Amino acid sequence: MRLTPATELEYRCKKLQALMQTADLDAVLIVQNADLYYFTGTVQNGCLYVPAQGQPLYLVRRDQARARMESGLKEVLSFSAPRDIPAIISSYGYPEPKRIGLEFDVLPVVFLERYRKVWPNVVFSDATPLIRQVRMIKSHYEIHLMQDAADQVHKIYERAKEVIKVGMTDIELAAELEYTARKHGHLGLIRMRVFNGEMFFGHTFSGTDSAVPAYTDTPFGGLGASPCFGQGAGHKPIGPNEPIIMDFAGSIDGYLVDQTRIFSIGPLSARLTQGFEDMLKVQELMKEIAVPGISWGEIYDRCHGLAMELGYADSFMGAPSSQVSFIGHGLGIEIDEYPFIAKGFKDQVMEIGMAWAFEPKVVFPGEGAVGIENTFYLSNDGLKQLTRSDDALVIL
Amino acid sequence: MRLTPATELEYRCKKLQALMQTADLDAVLIVQNADLYYFTGTVQNGCLYVPAQGQPLYLVRRDQARARMESGLKEVLSFSAPRDIPAIISSYGYPEPKRIGLEFDVLPVVFLERYRKVWPNVVFSDATPLIRQVRMIKSHYEIHLMQDAADQVHKIYERAKEVIKVGMTDIELAAELEYTARKHGHLGLIRMRVFNGEMFFGHTFSGTDSAVPAYTDTPFGGLGASPCFGQGAGHKPIGPNEPIIMDFAGSIDGYLVDQTRIFSIGPLSARLTQGFEDMLKVQELMKEIAVPGISWGEIYDRCHGLAMELGYADSFMGAPSSQVSFIGHGLGIEIDEYPFIAKGFKDQVMEIGMAWAFEPKVVFPGEGAVGIENTFYLSNDGLKQLTRSDDALVIL
Repeated sequence: MRLTPATELEYRCKKLQALMQTADLDAVLIVQNADLYYFTGTVQNGCLYVPAQGQPLYLVRRDQARARMESGLKEVLSFSAPRDIPAIISSYGYPEPKRIGLEFDVLPVVFLERYRKVWPNVVFSDATPLIRQVRMIKSHYEIHLMQDAADQVHKIYERAKEVIKVGMTDIELAAELEYTARKHGHLGLIRMRVFNGEMFFGHTFSGTDSAVPAYTDTPFGGLGASPCFGQGAGHKPIGPNEPIIMDFAGSIDGYLVDQTRIFSIGPLSARLTQGFEDMLKVQELMKEIAVPGISWGEIYDRCHGLAMELGYADSFMGAPSSQVSFIGHGLGIEIDEYPFIAKGFKDQVMEIGMAWAFEPKVVFPGEGAVGIENTFYLSNDGLKQLTRSDDALVIL
Repeated sequence: MRLTPATELEYRCKKLQALMQTADLDAVLIVQNADLYYFTGTVQNGCLYVPAQGQPLYLVRRDQARARMESGLKEVLSFSAPRDIPAIISSYGYPEPKRIGLEFDVLPVVFLERYRKVWPNVVFSDATPLIRQVRMIKSHYEIHLMQDAADQVHKIYERAKEVIKVGMTDIELAAELEYTARKHGHLGLIRMRVFNGEMFFGHTFSGTDSAVPAYTDTPFGGLGASPCFGQGAGHKPIGPNEPIIMDFAGSIDGYLVDQTRIFSIGPLSARLTQGFEDMLKVQELMKEIAVPGISWGEIYDRCHGLAMELGYADSFMGAPSSQVSFIGHGLGIEIDEYPFIAKGFKDQVMEIGMAWAFEPKVVFPGEGAVGIENTFYLSNDGLKQLTRSDDALVIL
């Protein structure tokens, strides 16, 4: 367990304040857990008032003592309700805000209504793009945590090789991997920013079930064990000569990596084997072209183009009618951060400090799915790979 | 795995439509996963348009085939974006809505902005209270699922007796219990409605760590393993003569029960033992007074009053400065449903069909926490208890 250094928090806040000035915001009020963790170093019941200039004020309802202990911020203050905030700001000598940015992509409507009562003359706008821009550039500290998460997921991968047996069900395998993860410090929680985003460690499934589409915005879906959570592992027994997918998010101190590997008891069909090899080629292309300055959309277009050339129009990134329009996604505290290696996005470019998972995959309904996923980082010295398990198909 | 019967879905929809007429709403548009599961029988990427009269329309972006297979609704339709909805409604012969209810407590602001563009002349209001009112009365079908979840959590309790050992850490114990849960069909996910609500199976911790407050709106908090998720199990080794808390949510097909039991290796101190016995008395009082017609707030007041008489002003429902103002919470698909056995709530009364967890607990900082939690149901024949593990302290 590490506490986020105060210098990290200061730097993050200053980056946000610089963007706020460009966006003409007097303040940003942060309330969502992932953003609070990023900007305060802890998650308490409260909110962070970031003025355009000066120290941010961490207003904490519960728990005060833990906020003081765990957060490196200078100003941790008590409050009981949003109506207290104007007086606190004023007593702190900060000007009355006229324009406040909020996390409109995650903030429920009732919260905005409450803030409108507190500040009837304030113009509220969406600060999410600014927050996401700050968070998309990882510090060395953050990359170290992700490196540890990659070590954790490698241990789970090694365990998978030991436990996979014919006849065990997907959910039994998932339970073994989750158990291993927890014993290696995984916090359990996978934070996902998108509304209704739900994930439990990742997706572990085999054969035909690996090719079942789901409601999730992911190339693989899975049948799941119930319509109430119809993704991931279900009760299908694992057989020989079928792909067994371990798409697993490692997590250390709230930082995630994403890794997918394919196992099989005995060899796979020629089509699946070829599909897997071809996805490695798509990964190689991304590694070549992901340099600072290339747009997220261009990486997508070129890698998608290669997959089309290789003959995967109907299977790349999902079963027909369920194909997703991305190949990679940024990650850190949440599994769906900037950058999006996705269709469109021609104006956003790769920058040093970005971290993302890249997951070229093919899905053949009625047979199974294969592909690869690793987590990468654009360092001063070029592209680095964080996840480190051997890419190769594991034939058991 | 069970599919929600079509008759259940019809009945639920009709109950919502009756409330909509009282509230003068022309339609309710449901988008949140838990509500979608309740009203459609599945969770897909899409939304449910419920007109004031007539069949609800399940508009599904992804996955169409699964929606048709898993939902018992008659009308499962394809759509790609909110802007398609007015034409679909119109083609279906439904009148243009003037007042639409949305889930304002969970719906992010950006979604409301999108809907305002689609329906510039519609008045939007909060349909959450109506939805929660429908969901708070459980059917026999739902109670059967919760009964199964209670059986599951009992098996995990039995396993706890076998695995608890001096020297194992709280997180190692949690991992064992979670593993057992998964092998007995637990879906992993615990749905919590409140904004920023996060829970991973429940809370497993021991001794002093059980008395550490957290950001969660729960009587127990826990240090956790990192400030990024500072609740539940941490790395504290379990010792003799201290309370070991297993506060665990069972889950079958998306339906939850909540149960807390206390274990100890060797006897507990007189104060903790007395505290535990006294919490059983508070539970007994609730069992006596929870009849149809009593207000939620009166149950709270009387049980809270008994705890005060017994001398727990500084420890009941949390450490000093962290005490919560409820003793029980409704549950079903989410862990925080109606009814709230909480301070206030004098106008809402207990009704047949309600299910709730009741959890009188005391917290002694620096020493530990004790208490009891069971899940109850108000049947036609009076109060029934769903969770069934023996209430007694388990001295190992």
